[in-house]
Amino acid sequence: MKYPTVFEELVICFKKFAGVGTKSAERMAYQVLTFSKEDVAFFSETLLAMKTKIKFCSICGHISEEDTCLICQDDSRNEHTLCVVQSSRDVFALEKANDFRGRYHVLNGIISAVNGVGPQDINLESLIERVKNGSLKEIILATNPNVEGETTALYIARLLEDYPVTTTRLAYGLPVGGNLDYADAFTLLKAFEGRKKI
Amino acid sequence: MKYPTVFEELVICFKKFAGVGTKSAERMAYQVLTFSKEDVAFFSETLLAMKTKIKFCSICGHISEEDTCLICQDDSRNEHTLCVVQSSRDVFALEKANDFRGRYHVLNGIISAVNGVGPQDINLESLIERVKNGSLKEIILATNPNVEGETTALYIARLLEDYPVTTTRLAYGLPVGGNLDYADAFTLLKAFEGRKKI
Repeated sequence: MKYPTVFEELVICFKKFAGVGTKSAERMAYQVLTFSKEDVAFFSETLLAMKTKIKFCSICGHISEEDTCLICQDDSRNEHTLCVVQSSRDVFALEKANDFRGRYHVLNGIISAVNGVGPQDINLESLIERVKNGSLKEIILATNPNVEGETTALYIARLLEDYPVTTTRLAYGLPVGGNLDYADAFTLLKAFEGRKKI
Repeated sequence: MKYPTVFEELVICFKKFAGVGTKSAERMAYQVLTFSKEDVAFFSETLLAMKTKIKFCSICGHISEEDTCLICQDDSRNEHTLCVVQSSRDVFALEKANDFRGRYHVLNGIISAVNGVGPQDINLESLIERVKNGSLKEIILATNPNVEGETTALYIARLLEDYPVTTTRLAYGLPVGGNLDYADAFTLLKAFEGRKKI
Protein backbone atom coordinates (compact mmCIF):
# COMPACT_ATOMS: atom_id res chain seq x y z
CA MET A 1 0.00 0.00 0.00
CA LYS A 2 1.35 3.38 -1.00
CA TYR A 3 0.86 6.85 0.44
CA PRO A 4 -1.12 9.32 -1.69
CA THR A 5 1.19 11.07 -4.22
CA VAL A 6 0.91 14.52 -2.67
CA PHE A 7 1.70 13.04 0.74
CA GLU A 8 4.85 11.38 -0.64
CA GLU A 9 5.85 14.68 -2.23
CA LEU A 10 5.47 16.56 1.04
CA VAL A 11 7.56 13.91 2.81
CA ILE A 12 10.32 14.51 0.22
CA CYS A 13 10.12 18.27 0.91
CA PHE A 14 10.50 17.78 4.67
CA LYS A 15 13.37 15.34 4.20
CA LYS A 16 15.41 18.14 2.60
CA PHE A 17 15.91 19.62 6.08
CA ALA A 18 19.06 18.56 7.90
CA GLY A 19 18.33 16.01 10.61
CA VAL A 20 14.86 15.13 9.30
CA GLY A 21 14.64 11.46 8.29
CA THR A 22 11.80 9.55 6.65
CA LYS A 23 9.94 8.84 9.93
CA SER A 24 10.09 12.46 11.09
CA ALA A 25 9.12 13.74 7.65
CA GLU A 26 6.10 11.39 7.62
CA ARG A 27 5.08 12.59 11.07
CA MET A 28 5.32 16.20 9.96
CA ALA A 29 3.31 15.52 6.80
CA TYR A 30 0.60 13.90 8.94
CA GLN A 31 0.58 16.90 11.19
CA VAL A 32 0.00 19.19 8.23
CA LEU A 33 -3.29 17.31 7.73
CA THR A 34 -4.36 18.26 11.24
CA PHE A 35 -3.56 21.99 10.77
CA SER A 36 -6.36 24.37 9.88
CA LYS A 37 -6.71 25.46 6.26
CA GLU A 38 -5.72 29.01 7.25
CA ASP A 39 -2.56 27.86 9.01
CA VAL A 40 -1.45 25.81 6.01
CA ALA A 41 -2.19 28.70 3.63
CA PHE A 42 -0.16 31.03 5.87
CA PHE A 43 2.71 28.53 6.04
CA SER A 44 2.68 28.16 2.27
CA GLU A 45 2.70 31.95 1.69
CA THR A 46 5.42 32.56 4.27
CA LEU A 47 7.68 30.02 2.58
CA LEU A 48 7.37 31.88 -0.72
CA ALA A 49 7.85 35.22 1.01
CA MET A 50 11.15 34.00 2.47
CA LYS A 51 12.58 33.73 -1.02
CA THR A 52 11.14 36.99 -2.31
CA LYS A 53 11.38 39.30 0.72
CA ILE A 54 14.66 38.20 2.26
CA LYS A 55 17.89 39.14 0.54
CA PHE A 56 21.52 38.91 1.48
CA CYS A 57 23.08 42.29 2.37
CA SER A 58 25.17 43.48 -0.57
CA ILE A 59 27.95 44.58 1.80
CA CYS A 60 28.24 41.86 4.44
CA GLY A 61 26.06 38.95 3.28
CA HIS A 62 23.77 39.01 6.35
CA ILE A 63 20.07 38.32 5.76
CA SER A 64 18.05 41.48 5.36
CA GLU A 65 14.74 42.77 4.10
CA GLU A 66 16.55 45.62 2.34
CA ASP A 67 19.58 45.79 0.03
CA THR A 68 21.88 46.56 2.93
CA CYS A 69 21.25 45.15 6.40
CA LEU A 70 20.47 47.15 9.54
CA ILE A 71 23.99 46.63 10.93
CA CYS A 72 25.69 47.93 7.79
CA GLN A 73 23.32 50.91 7.84
CA ASP A 74 24.14 51.71 11.47
CA ASP A 75 26.74 54.52 11.53
CA SER A 76 27.28 54.21 15.26
CA ARG A 77 29.10 50.92 14.73
CA ASN A 78 32.88 50.75 14.82
CA GLU A 79 34.21 50.62 11.25
CA HIS A 80 37.62 49.31 12.22
CA THR A 81 36.64 45.91 13.55
CA LEU A 82 35.08 43.17 11.43
CA CYS A 83 33.78 39.88 12.76
CA VAL A 84 33.71 37.08 10.17
CA VAL A 85 31.07 34.38 10.78
CA GLN A 86 29.72 31.37 8.94
CA SER A 87 26.04 32.29 8.86
CA SER A 88 23.47 34.88 9.84
CA ARG A 89 22.54 32.63 12.76
CA ASP A 90 25.91 33.47 14.28
CA VAL A 91 25.30 37.19 13.87
CA PHE A 92 22.10 36.89 15.90
CA ALA A 93 23.89 34.80 18.52
CA LEU A 94 26.70 37.36 18.87
CA GLU A 95 24.24 40.26 18.90
CA LYS A 96 22.39 38.62 21.77
CA ALA A 97 25.64 38.71 23.77
CA ASN A 98 25.31 42.45 23.11
CA ASP A 99 28.95 43.39 23.51
CA PHE A 100 30.50 43.56 20.03
CA ARG A 101 29.93 46.95 18.38
CA GLY A 102 31.90 46.42 15.17
CA ARG A 103 30.73 45.19 11.78
CA TYR A 104 30.11 41.67 10.50
CA HIS A 105 30.92 39.68 7.42
CA VAL A 106 28.79 36.59 6.78
CA LEU A 107 30.45 33.86 4.71
CA ASN A 108 27.16 32.02 4.07
CA GLY A 109 29.08 28.77 3.98
CA ILE A 110 32.21 27.09 5.24
CA ILE A 111 35.12 25.46 3.43
CA SER A 112 34.56 21.71 3.64
CA ALA A 113 36.32 19.05 1.61
CA VAL A 114 33.73 16.48 2.71
CA ASN A 115 30.83 18.54 1.36
CA GLY A 116 32.74 19.72 -1.69
CA VAL A 117 32.63 23.39 -0.67
CA GLY A 118 35.70 25.36 -1.74
CA PRO A 119 36.84 28.94 -1.07
CA GLN A 120 35.13 30.09 -4.27
CA ASP A 121 31.75 28.93 -2.93
CA ILE A 122 31.66 31.21 0.10
CA ASN A 123 31.34 34.98 0.43
CA LEU A 124 35.11 35.69 0.41
CA GLU A 125 35.62 37.96 -2.58
CA SER A 126 33.65 40.79 -1.02
CA LEU A 127 35.57 40.30 2.23
CA ILE A 128 38.85 40.98 0.40
CA GLU A 129 37.22 44.02 -1.23
CA ARG A 130 36.20 45.33 2.18
CA VAL A 131 39.72 44.82 3.53
CA LYS A 132 41.23 46.57 0.49
CA ASN A 133 38.90 49.54 0.42
CA GLY A 134 37.85 50.03 4.01
CA SER A 135 39.41 51.36 7.13
CA LEU A 136 39.53 47.97 8.82
CA LYS A 137 42.14 47.33 11.47
CA GLU A 138 41.13 44.03 13.01
CA ILE A 139 39.47 41.00 11.47
CA ILE A 140 38.05 38.62 14.10
CA LEU A 141 37.62 35.14 12.67
CA ALA A 142 34.58 33.80 14.49
CA THR A 143 33.88 30.64 12.51
CA ASN A 144 32.78 27.60 14.51
CA PRO A 145 35.34 25.79 16.69
CA ASN A 146 35.30 22.63 14.56
CA VAL A 147 37.36 21.21 11.67
CA GLU A 148 35.60 23.17 8.92
CA GLY A 149 35.53 26.39 10.93
CA GLU A 150 39.20 26.04 11.79
CA THR A 151 40.18 25.31 8.17
CA THR A 152 38.23 28.30 6.92
CA ALA A 153 39.72 30.59 9.58
CA LEU A 154 43.26 29.50 8.66
CA TYR A 155 42.52 29.95 4.96
CA ILE A 156 41.23 33.48 5.52
CA ALA A 157 44.16 34.32 7.83
CA ARG A 158 46.62 33.34 5.05
CA LEU A 159 44.62 35.30 2.50
CA LEU A 160 44.84 38.44 4.64
CA GLU A 161 48.54 38.16 5.47
CA ASP A 162 49.54 40.77 2.89
CA TYR A 163 47.07 43.38 4.09
CA PRO A 164 47.71 45.83 6.94
CA VAL A 165 45.14 44.26 9.26
CA THR A 166 45.42 42.23 12.45
CA THR A 167 43.71 38.85 12.21
CA THR A 168 42.43 37.30 15.46
CA ARG A 169 40.55 34.14 16.39
CA LEU A 170 37.99 33.72 19.20
CA ALA A 171 39.44 32.17 22.37
CA TYR A 172 39.21 28.44 23.02
CA GLY A 173 38.56 27.32 26.59
CA LEU A 174 35.96 26.04 29.01
CA PRO A 175 32.40 27.19 28.40
CA VAL A 176 31.12 29.40 31.23
CA GLY A 177 28.82 27.45 33.54
CA GLY A 178 30.26 24.21 32.18
CA ASN A 179 31.81 21.30 33.98
CA LEU A 180 35.43 20.09 33.79
CA ASP A 181 34.06 16.56 33.74
CA TYR A 182 32.22 17.11 30.49
CA ALA A 183 34.97 18.97 28.64
CA ASP A 184 36.85 16.94 26.02
CA ALA A 185 40.63 16.53 26.19
CA PHE A 186 41.26 19.04 23.40
CA THR A 187 39.21 21.75 25.09
CA LEU A 188 41.00 21.14 28.40
CA LEU A 189 44.36 21.37 26.61
CA LYS A 190 43.34 24.68 25.04
CA ALA A 191 42.06 25.94 28.38
CA PHE A 192 45.44 25.16 29.98
CA GLU A 193 47.33 26.78 27.11
CA GLY A 194 45.25 29.92 27.31
CA ARG A 195 45.31 30.22 31.13
CA LYS A 196 45.45 33.74 32.55
CA LYS A 197 46.82 35.28 35.72
CA ILE A 198 44.08 36.26 38.14
CA MET B 1 18.53 42.85 17.08
CA LYS B 2 15.45 41.21 15.66
CA TYR B 3 14.94 38.69 12.86
CA PRO B 4 13.16 39.96 9.74
CA THR B 5 9.37 39.69 10.15
CA VAL B 6 8.85 37.01 7.52
CA PHE B 7 11.64 34.95 9.10
CA GLU B 8 9.95 35.18 12.51
CA GLU B 9 6.67 34.13 10.91
CA LEU B 10 8.23 31.07 9.31
CA VAL B 11 9.79 30.12 12.65
CA ILE B 12 6.31 30.25 14.19
CA CYS B 13 5.01 27.96 11.41
CA PHE B 14 7.73 25.38 12.01
CA LYS B 15 7.22 25.50 15.78
CA LYS B 16 3.67 24.18 15.26
CA PHE B 17 5.14 20.74 14.56
CA ALA B 18 5.44 18.42 17.55
CA GLY B 19 9.01 18.15 18.80
CA VAL B 20 10.22 21.26 16.96
CA GLY B 21 11.45 23.93 19.37
CA THR B 22 12.64 27.48 18.71
CA LYS B 23 16.24 26.47 17.86
CA SER B 24 15.18 23.75 15.42
CA ALA B 25 12.57 26.01 13.85
CA GLU B 26 15.20 28.73 13.35
CA ARG B 27 17.56 26.23 11.75
CA MET B 28 14.83 25.07 9.41
CA ALA B 29 13.92 28.64 8.46
CA TYR B 30 17.58 29.33 7.66
CA GLN B 31 17.69 26.23 5.52
CA VAL B 32 14.71 27.45 3.52
CA LEU B 33 16.92 30.41 2.50
CA THR B 34 19.47 28.00 1.05
CA PHE B 35 16.87 26.05 -0.98
CA SER B 36 16.42 26.88 -4.65
CA LYS B 37 13.47 29.05 -5.64
CA GLU B 38 11.90 26.07 -7.46
CA ASP B 39 12.19 23.82 -4.40
CA VAL B 40 10.53 26.40 -2.16
CA ALA B 41 7.76 26.98 -4.70
CA PHE B 42 7.17 23.21 -4.90
CA PHE B 43 7.15 22.91 -1.10
CA SER B 44 4.66 25.77 -0.85
CA GLU B 45 2.34 24.25 -3.49
CA THR B 46 2.52 20.76 -2.00
CA LEU B 47 1.48 22.10 1.40
CA LEU B 48 -1.62 23.65 -0.10
CA ALA B 49 -2.32 20.49 -2.12
CA MET B 50 -2.29 18.44 1.10
CA LYS B 51 -5.34 20.32 2.32
CA THR B 52 -7.19 20.28 -1.00
CA LYS B 53 -6.30 16.87 -2.44
CA ILE B 54 -6.25 14.71 0.65
CA LYS B 55 -9.53 13.83 2.30
CA PHE B 56 -10.53 11.46 5.05
CA CYS B 57 -12.38 8.37 3.79
CA SER B 58 -16.10 8.79 4.44
CA ILE B 59 -16.34 5.18 5.64
CA CYS B 60 -13.25 4.51 7.73
CA GLY B 61 -11.52 7.89 8.23
CA HIS B 62 -8.26 6.85 6.54
CA ILE B 63 -6.49 9.46 4.39
CA SER B 64 -7.37 9.19 0.73
CA GLU B 65 -7.31 11.09 -2.52
CA GLU B 66 -10.89 10.01 -3.23
CA ASP B 67 -14.08 10.02 -1.18
CA THR B 68 -13.55 6.44 -0.10
CA CYS B 69 -10.09 5.00 0.44
CA LEU B 70 -8.49 2.17 -1.54
CA ILE B 71 -8.98 -0.30 1.31
CA CYS B 72 -12.71 0.40 1.64
CA GLN B 73 -13.01 0.08 -2.16
CA ASP B 74 -11.25 -3.30 -2.18
CA ASP B 75 -13.90 -6.05 -2.31
CA SER B 76 -11.38 -8.81 -1.71
CA ARG B 77 -11.00 -7.70 1.89
CA ASN B 78 -12.70 -9.56 4.70
CA GLU B 79 -15.80 -7.66 5.76
CA HIS B 80 -16.15 -9.39 9.10
CA THR B 81 -13.00 -8.14 10.79
CA LEU B 82 -12.34 -4.50 11.62
CA CYS B 83 -9.10 -3.14 12.99
CA VAL B 84 -9.47 0.12 14.95
CA VAL B 85 -6.37 2.35 14.95
CA GLN B 86 -5.49 5.83 16.16
CA SER B 87 -4.20 7.29 12.88
CA SER B 88 -3.55 6.60 9.21
CA ARG B 89 0.13 6.13 10.10
CA ASP B 90 -0.89 2.95 11.90
CA VAL B 91 -2.76 1.68 8.85
CA PHE B 92 0.40 2.01 6.76
CA ALA B 93 2.44 0.29 9.49
CA LEU B 94 0.00 -2.64 9.68
CA GLU B 95 -0.25 -2.88 5.90
CA LYS B 96 3.53 -3.17 5.71
CA ALA B 97 3.29 -6.25 7.93
CA ASN B 98 1.10 -7.49 5.09
CA ASP B 99 -0.90 -10.05 7.01
CA PHE B 100 -4.19 -8.47 8.01
CA ARG B 101 -6.80 -8.70 5.26
CA GLY B 102 -9.78 -7.16 7.03
CA ARG B 103 -10.97 -3.58 7.11
CA TYR B 104 -9.79 -0.60 9.14
CA HIS B 105 -11.35 2.17 11.16
CA VAL B 106 -9.19 5.22 11.82
CA LEU B 107 -10.10 7.22 14.94
CA ASN B 108 -8.00 10.24 13.90
CA GLY B 109 -7.37 10.97 17.56
CA ILE B 110 -7.17 9.35 20.94
CA ILE B 111 -9.06 9.96 24.18
CA SER B 112 -6.73 11.95 26.40
CA ALA B 113 -7.70 13.85 29.54
CA VAL B 114 -4.34 15.65 29.53
CA ASN B 115 -4.88 17.02 26.02
CA GLY B 116 -8.59 17.63 26.55
CA VAL B 117 -9.68 15.15 23.89
CA GLY B 118 -12.94 13.38 24.70
CA PRO B 119 -14.85 10.54 22.99
CA GLN B 120 -16.86 13.10 20.98
CA ASP B 121 -13.66 14.44 19.38
CA ILE B 122 -12.63 11.20 17.70
CA ASN B 123 -14.12 9.24 14.82
CA LEU B 124 -16.37 7.01 16.99
CA GLU B 125 -19.86 7.76 15.76
CA SER B 126 -19.24 6.22 12.37
CA LEU B 127 -17.65 3.18 14.07
CA ILE B 128 -20.90 2.51 15.90
CA GLU B 129 -22.79 2.96 12.64
CA ARG B 130 -20.54 0.39 10.97
CA VAL B 131 -21.08 -2.07 13.82
CA LYS B 132 -24.85 -1.51 13.68
CA ASN B 133 -25.25 -1.81 9.94
CA GLY B 134 -22.44 -4.05 8.82
CA SER B 135 -21.67 -7.71 8.95
CA LEU B 136 -18.82 -7.28 11.43
CA LYS B 137 -17.92 -10.15 13.71
CA GLU B 138 -14.66 -9.08 15.30
CA ILE B 139 -13.38 -5.65 16.27
CA ILE B 140 -9.62 -5.60 16.91
CA LEU B 141 -8.66 -2.64 19.07
CA ALA B 142 -5.19 -1.73 17.84
CA THR B 143 -4.65 1.59 19.58
CA ASN B 144 -1.14 2.25 20.90
CA PRO B 145 0.05 0.32 23.98
CA ASN B 146 0.16 3.41 26.22
CA VAL B 147 -2.17 5.12 28.69
CA GLU B 148 -4.24 6.98 26.09
CA GLY B 149 -4.42 3.99 23.75
CA GLU B 150 -5.47 1.72 26.61
CA THR B 151 -8.12 4.15 27.85
CA THR B 152 -9.56 4.52 24.36
CA ALA B 153 -9.58 0.75 23.78
CA LEU B 154 -11.42 0.18 27.08
CA TYR B 155 -13.90 2.93 26.26
CA ILE B 156 -14.67 1.41 22.86
CA ALA B 157 -14.90 -2.10 24.32
CA ARG B 158 -17.57 -0.85 26.79
CA LEU B 159 -19.39 0.95 24.01
CA LEU B 160 -19.58 -2.23 21.93
CA GLU B 161 -20.70 -4.54 24.77
CA ASP B 162 -24.32 -4.51 23.64
CA TYR B 163 -23.57 -5.42 20.05
CA PRO B 164 -23.12 -8.98 18.74
CA VAL B 165 -19.40 -8.54 18.01
CA THR B 166 -16.26 -9.92 19.63
CA THR B 167 -13.87 -7.23 20.79
CA THR B 168 -10.16 -8.10 20.96
CA ARG B 169 -6.96 -6.25 21.83
CA LEU B 170 -3.52 -6.73 20.27
CA ALA B 171 -1.20 -8.93 22.37
CA TYR B 172 1.27 -7.43 24.82
CA GLY B 173 4.68 -9.06 25.08
CA LEU B 174 8.32 -8.84 24.14
CA PRO B 175 9.06 -7.18 20.82
CA VAL B 176 10.55 -9.64 18.31
CA GLY B 177 14.31 -9.18 18.02
CA GLY B 178 14.28 -7.36 21.35
CA ASN B 179 16.28 -7.94 24.48
CA LEU B 180 14.95 -9.04 27.89
CA ASP B 181 17.41 -6.55 29.41
CA TYR B 182 15.75 -3.61 27.75
CA ALA B 183 12.15 -4.62 28.41
CA ASP B 184 10.40 -2.69 31.18
CA ALA B 185 8.84 -4.49 34.15
CA PHE B 186 5.30 -4.05 32.87
CA THR B 187 6.12 -5.57 29.48
CA LEU B 188 7.86 -8.52 31.16
CA LEU B 189 4.81 -9.05 33.39
CA LYS B 190 2.53 -9.07 30.36
CA ALA B 191 4.89 -11.42 28.52
CA PHE B 192 4.71 -13.86 31.46
CA GLU B 193 0.94 -13.56 31.69
CA GLY B 194 0.51 -14.21 28.01
CA ARG B 195 2.99 -17.09 27.79
CA LYS B 196 2.13 -19.91 25.38
CA LYS B 197 2.87 -23.63 25.20
CA ILE B 198 5.44 -24.42 22.53
